[in-house]
Amino acid sequence: MNSKRPFARWLDDTNEVTRIFLSAGQIPDLINLAGGLPEPSVWPIDELADLAQKAILNHSMEALAYSPIEGLPKLRDVIADRYSNDNTQLASDNVLVTTGGMQALDLLGKIMLDEGGLIAGQFPTYLGALDAWRPRQPTYRHMQLEGNVDFDAHAALDGAQFAYTVPNFSNPSGFLVPLETRKALVDAAHATGTLLVEDDPYGTLNLDGSPLPRLLDLSAKKQSGVYDGPVVYLGTLSKMLAPGLRIGWIIAAPDVIAALVLAKQGSDMCSSGLCQQIAQQALSQGVIEKILPPTLDIYRTRRNVLCDAMDTHLSDLFQWTKPQGGMFVWAQALDLQMNTNRLLETAMDCGVCVSPSSAFDPSGANTSAIRINFTLNEPDKLIEGIKRLETAARRLL
Amino acid sequence: MNSKRPFARWLDDTNEVTRIFLSAGQIPDLINLAGGLPEPSVWPIDELADLAQKAILNHSMEALAYSPIEGLPKLRDVIADRYSNDNTQLASDNVLVTTGGMQALDLLGKIMLDEGGLIAGQFPTYLGALDAWRPRQPTYRHMQLEGNVDFDAHAALDGAQFAYTVPNFSNPSGFLVPLETRKALVDAAHATGTLLVEDDPYGTLNLDGSPLPRLLDLSAKKQSGVYDGPVVYLGTLSKMLAPGLRIGWIIAAPDVIAALVLAKQGSDMCSSGLCQQIAQQALSQGVIEKILPPTLDIYRTRRNVLCDAMDTHLSDLFQWTKPQGGMFVWAQALDLQMNTNRLLETAMDCGVCVSPSSAFDPSGANTSAIRINFTLNEPDKLIEGIKRLETAARRLL
Repeated sequence: MNSKRPFARWLDDTNEVTRIFLSAGQIPDLINLAGGLPEPSVWPIDELADLAQKAILNHSMEALAYSPIEGLPKLRDVIADRYSNDNTQLASDNVLVTTGGMQALDLLGKIMLDEGGLIAGQFPTYLGALDAWRPRQPTYRHMQLEGNVDFDAHAALDGAQFAYTVPNFSNPSGFLVPLETRKALVDAAHATGTLLVEDDPYGTLNLDGSPLPRLLDLSAKKQSGVYDGPVVYLGTLSKMLAPGLRIGWIIAAPDVIAALVLAKQGSDMCSSGLCQQIAQQALSQGVIEKILPPTLDIYRTRRNVLCDAMDTHLSDLFQWTKPQGGMFVWAQALDLQMNTNRLLETAMDCGVCVSPSSAFDPSGANTSAIRINFTLNEPDKLIEGIKRLETAARRLL
Repeated sequence: MNSKRPFARWLDDTNEVTRIFLSAGQIPDLINLAGGLPEPSVWPIDELADLAQKAILNHSMEALAYSPIEGLPKLRDVIADRYSNDNTQLASDNVLVTTGGMQALDLLGKIMLDEGGLIAGQFPTYLGALDAWRPRQPTYRHMQLEGNVDFDAHAALDGAQFAYTVPNFSNPSGFLVPLETRKALVDAAHATGTLLVEDDPYGTLNLDGSPLPRLLDLSAKKQSGVYDGPVVYLGTLSKMLAPGLRIGWIIAAPDVIAALVLAKQGSDMCSSGLCQQIAQQALSQGVIEKILPPTLDIYRTRRNVLCDAMDTHLSDLFQWTKPQGGMFVWAQALDLQMNTNRLLETAMDCGVCVSPSSAFDPSGANTSAIRINFTLNEPDKLIEGIKRLETAARRLL
């Protein structure tokens, strides 16, 4: 960025792609396949309006006063109960409420990352995680989790300040980390002492088949009391209820939560009591379970429409795996000379916006793939968007 | 803190006093004069419940979707209008919405503070500011703003990464920075290029007399267009409406706001849309102006009751200046051998809690003063609390 002021050095690492995205909102008739936004029509507006009103009228201290830094006690209890099972025992001391999933990443950086510290990551990775840790200018080491029968989890985790993975329908790749790799990661976390961050915003968006076990559950030792393992699990309401509430949570060993509380105290003191009170009621009253099936129906249809349109229009240009869940299709150009940063510019001229792979890598070196979102647009828009993308891609040939 | 994990080094700088405060909530019949909490009975519960319900029903995209990082456009406009005047011209580009005033401090540290960087501060200072910047382990240089006719503002600001002041009824001292000192700080900020942070949560809590001009207004150049000066002004709804909404704001030059937006993107992406929508309506509809006079009446009565009780019970033990506003009385022990960390322990045994001065200094070296809050407790509790404090203090003699 350009400024006359002597700002901190990390601000020089600008992300041009984000700037282009932001300008996309100003362009009329642009079909935006770039973002990661949920479909608003599934939001339970009447229920949430009612919960918001009642939160203030009937629980004014919880809603309007400062909350405990850790979160409202009843919300922590509801979250602990939600993730507890025969194998994994959680108490409220295992839970910190965060201001959305993004804050969890910021807080983890604050407690675990020294300036220039090493993170074991799964690339391509979530852009927001790179944003959260950029002020500490970390170094990254790639964990090759996909299609890697020889994956050495111990070597991958050893010496890292922490490891970061999105095991369910990873953003941007849509990749599902296989069970054997999950077990290997957990074993390595136990052996090395490296904390293993399991970021799971998309786990509930399972469109086909059954979910795989969480790293959290794989790392819990039955009958050893309250969870004290090496996994730091991140959840959020953003993809399962509504992002505007900015409510997420971290589940981890009590000493990790205690350190995170100190970091949150100096970050925003506490999350909104009003939003926490709404979240607690929504989780307790089964609002999530009520809206999930219709949400998945919509997303499944849209994913299928998108992949069919890609089969028709893009099969000689890209290759991809139809994702079993999440929000994205990751498409790799067959011609590795295809520069997807340039494709984004041409695509915007053609009236469609996708995310180029350079955004999901700290080095920006991967320039031959794109991420396409299927959750936000209606089927006819998805088809038209892919047609426009085909036009743009053929212009580059 | 104790943990088996290799957490970042700054977590070792624990604050024992905060730990004692937190345990205070568990003690029955304790009179808490330590915190900085507003009086809940003035909250406009019915209006806020109505605004919350309508925000979701009538503005569901604003309330429930991701907001722009900078904040909802209409809220930014309302804030810009609120602080604009004949002298100071503000546009929405001068405004960033934050998750409470605390987040503003965190974001400022992220864009301005290198590891171990130098901050020019006014001590004793706000404990939360020390918390926000602790992860970067800064060094501090004291600006002697109180009773200092020879104050050299240029020397105070020169070479600092930024300067931090709470000019109105400073937490903890209640001190009001005089007009001449304000002008000197602004002139020095212009001359040195050092950004001057004006943290103003208490400016509206003016119990006697008229407010002094803001550093923001003193630094604005009439007829030079949109504000581009060296002051970074921080405001919040926490003390003028309700802390549970977690809505604050930063007003600064557009290039400073642009850098802060990058920091906020990686901190919590955006503040709650629901809370922003409520804030926008509350600010637009005059809700603050409606509740301010009864709030000030209550606080003025309580301040007078507290100071009268102090006159009766503590005048041979402490000296203090009756504050013209804010939430606190700062009392200096007449016997400099009085250790107020020890006084806190004895006071807790006697059923009252106050804040010892060591909490408000990065070195913890000041151990001969206390901060007493007058906003949260009813008059009879304030009187009883001071009687208990007298008992505790005499035990230490």
